[in-house]
Amino acid sequence: MAQKPSIPKGTRDFSPVEMVRRNYIFDTIKDVFRLYGFQPIETPAMENLSTLMGKYGEEGDKLLFKILNSGDFISKAPQEVIDEKNSNKLTTHISEKGLRYDLTVPFARYVVQYRNDIVFPFKRYQIQPVWRADRPQKGRYREFYQCDVDVIGSDSLLNELELVQIIDDVFQRLQINTVVKINNRKILAGIAEAIGEADRMVDITVAIDKLDKIGLEKVNAEMLEKGISETAVEKLQPILKLEGSTAEKLEQIATVIGHTEIGAKGISEMQTLFAYLANFDLKTEVELDLTLARGLNYYTGAIFEVKSKDVQIGSICGGGRYDDLTGIFGMPDVSGVGVSFGAERIYDVLTQLNLFPHESMETTKALFINFGEKEEAYCLPVLAQLRKNNVNAEIFPESAKMKKQMNYANRKEIPFVILAGEEEMAAQKFTLKNMETGEQQLVSAEELIKALS
Amino acid sequence: MAQKPSIPKGTRDFSPVEMVRRNYIFDTIKDVFRLYGFQPIETPAMENLSTLMGKYGEEGDKLLFKILNSGDFISKAPQEVIDEKNSNKLTTHISEKGLRYDLTVPFARYVVQYRNDIVFPFKRYQIQPVWRADRPQKGRYREFYQCDVDVIGSDSLLNELELVQIIDDVFQRLQINTVVKINNRKILAGIAEAIGEADRMVDITVAIDKLDKIGLEKVNAEMLEKGISETAVEKLQPILKLEGSTAEKLEQIATVIGHTEIGAKGISEMQTLFAYLANFDLKTEVELDLTLARGLNYYTGAIFEVKSKDVQIGSICGGGRYDDLTGIFGMPDVSGVGVSFGAERIYDVLTQLNLFPHESMETTKALFINFGEKEEAYCLPVLAQLRKNNVNAEIFPESAKMKKQMNYANRKEIPFVILAGEEEMAAQKFTLKNMETGEQQLVSAEELIKALS
Repeated sequence: MAQKPSIPKGTRDFSPVEMVRRNYIFDTIKDVFRLYGFQPIETPAMENLSTLMGKYGEEGDKLLFKILNSGDFISKAPQEVIDEKNSNKLTTHISEKGLRYDLTVPFARYVVQYRNDIVFPFKRYQIQPVWRADRPQKGRYREFYQCDVDVIGSDSLLNELELVQIIDDVFQRLQINTVVKINNRKILAGIAEAIGEADRMVDITVAIDKLDKIGLEKVNAEMLEKGISETAVEKLQPILKLEGSTAEKLEQIATVIGHTEIGAKGISEMQTLFAYLANFDLKTEVELDLTLARGLNYYTGAIFEVKSKDVQIGSICGGGRYDDLTGIFGMPDVSGVGVSFGAERIYDVLTQLNLFPHESMETTKALFINFGEKEEAYCLPVLAQLRKNNVNAEIFPESAKMKKQMNYANRKEIPFVILAGEEEMAAQKFTLKNMETGEQQLVSAEELIKALS
Repeated sequence: MAQKPSIPKGTRDFSPVEMVRRNYIFDTIKDVFRLYGFQPIETPAMENLSTLMGKYGEEGDKLLFKILNSGDFISKAPQEVIDEKNSNKLTTHISEKGLRYDLTVPFARYVVQYRNDIVFPFKRYQIQPVWRADRPQKGRYREFYQCDVDVIGSDSLLNELELVQIIDDVFQRLQINTVVKINNRKILAGIAEAIGEADRMVDITVAIDKLDKIGLEKVNAEMLEKGISETAVEKLQPILKLEGSTAEKLEQIATVIGHTEIGAKGISEMQTLFAYLANFDLKTEVELDLTLARGLNYYTGAIFEVKSKDVQIGSICGGGRYDDLTGIFGMPDVSGVGVSFGAERIYDVLTQLNLFPHESMETTKALFINFGEKEEAYCLPVLAQLRKNNVNAEIFPESAKMKKQMNYANRKEIPFVILAGEEEMAAQKFTLKNMETGEQQLVSAEELIKALS
């Protein structure tokens, strides 16, 4: 009968300690989102497969978790499909729903579905888990949270500014030193056009994206291998090696791509954004990084990536401007821009730098030791008073051995313990013990409440 | 290409307005849970089917959402099972995981899995969605949140007291008038034994549970139909018709079942709990209700159900004491007690009684109207100052028509609008408009920040 309990690979349970830390991250992020006028939405864990399929490429389709239809699903599948034993084909007959793979596609679906009720520009944030049937490995899970913030229905670059301010504010609150790298897809398109490979922008950006990881030589080799002409790769070199201030970089790049319409537009957008940014005293570094491309092909303007300066880890936040996310659901020409915070990596950074706050509003502040029926009755009204004063407090539910009760307080990291035995009761007092210093005080009920409130 | 977007039946999207209201409920509940020393945990959406199957009865097994195995699942199913076309049998070969059906079984699994790391008594709360392939109908969804709070590893009745205090505190904060109905499964077992039908307790309690809904006559008929003897049903009548104060009820019932060991134990437990309760000034009504049985068979002691006094709706909170929840996972004899708050019904009650708070910390407090480039530059530093003072504020991202911008403020229910055009700029002032009263004030930046902070 008894089973050895376990959970599916790639999934996690979160203990109280982990929950408090995760909530610290989520609450910080949410507070900042609200400060900038963003509002929360939530979408269902399950979406129709018709909504999800074909949105993440062939590989993505495979990584979707699919829900088996309820009831007698197999009798509804055509016999010839069953006989064929082709899992992909059979899936479409026995499964109609899947778990969401990200928050972007459900958000696009949401915007189109409620387009008549939504007030545009729509500033929304969404913090929910997503599921991917990826091979689990260190730091990669099959269930993980995404924290997305987007403005949709406005092409003003003020939105890009505000996203950088949000990034700055979040990481300042979390005390993580960061650098925000910014680029613009229009500049990349301009480069592709200027070097005579306009229709190869995707290949070029995918290669450029790897510059940090594999180096200039291998990037060049990869481009040649993909059929980019030698002349084009040659023309690209000065751009890959650009250095200097942001203004300098933009000026240099303008001399190469300023004659292309899209390149000029991209440079102008970046000039506007960096001019905006210059007016604010940001704690984060902000830099133009022409090697930044980001894999996702729906980006059309500014793109962002945030790195921790003190921990070697992938980007902890990223995103960009997209001009046609909702087109696939029948609502074209709606521009949006957004970023996604990587809660799992932020957790790892905070852990490595020991930056989680020591005290938390979420944990118990004081424990009454339970010495027995009479003592319990003496303590309960004061416990109720403490809670009326919004002090998280508890009493050990039975008069167990002192050692067990103190161990409970220690393990739960409760900072204060309150003892009331014969002596304290006779004197109408309580002993308040500071668990960190070991210091004890004999106090009245009023003093106790005052000390802990 | 374009699809008409929709979501699976029985699931819901939550708009910003709904999210703010739902968060109000969840935050209120969480605050109270923490006040009583409870800590959060979370478990994965997916559990192994071996964890879930057989825990909710045959009907429950059918209502589990099952996840299709990834990859070439069908080639791993035995040919004879495929040929048989029996969906139930086939499921075990093509699906290994399911979505959680409630929070109780995952919690039991969690307790057993981490038994060596957990500090007992373990006071945990868990607020997460669950999924059931039920037929959707008004007020019944395929995805909905449960809010569970449990103490496990302590059989002290102090825990029952604290749960009632938590219920009282939560509904007092939400301003919902409630009555908490309490019964004890041991009393029900004592009754079954005393009327000579000890092994029919389940049938008797299931029938009694319906007393409120179908009336005494039909309950009697149902018991006879189920083979409970006429003598037994006769003996049961005085108990079904009991009236008076709690102490009176307990005394009367003691005369009938006090001679049974389990009945005496149940009465003693209720006397202790009601004696505890008498010491506290609760706002909720609390009553012993012998007709309360609750369907779930794992309850072994106190059982609770909470009703709204002002809205006709099912119970908005319920739970009880269980003595062997973890037994099925190989950890016997661990007693626990807990209740679950029905967030969806609480939402309906608050809506019907118009009790959601009008103002929320979560929404934007002030919007700067955007009159153009110069005006925007004049406003941005003050906007940043407001945010530094923790005021949720935004600027319309482009200089759209005044009507459009005011409409945005209205639809988003932003209470203050800030206007700064030529005149204000010349005077180094801002016009602060109260959107509810229409009142306008000309103020300096400092006065503006002070007025909104």
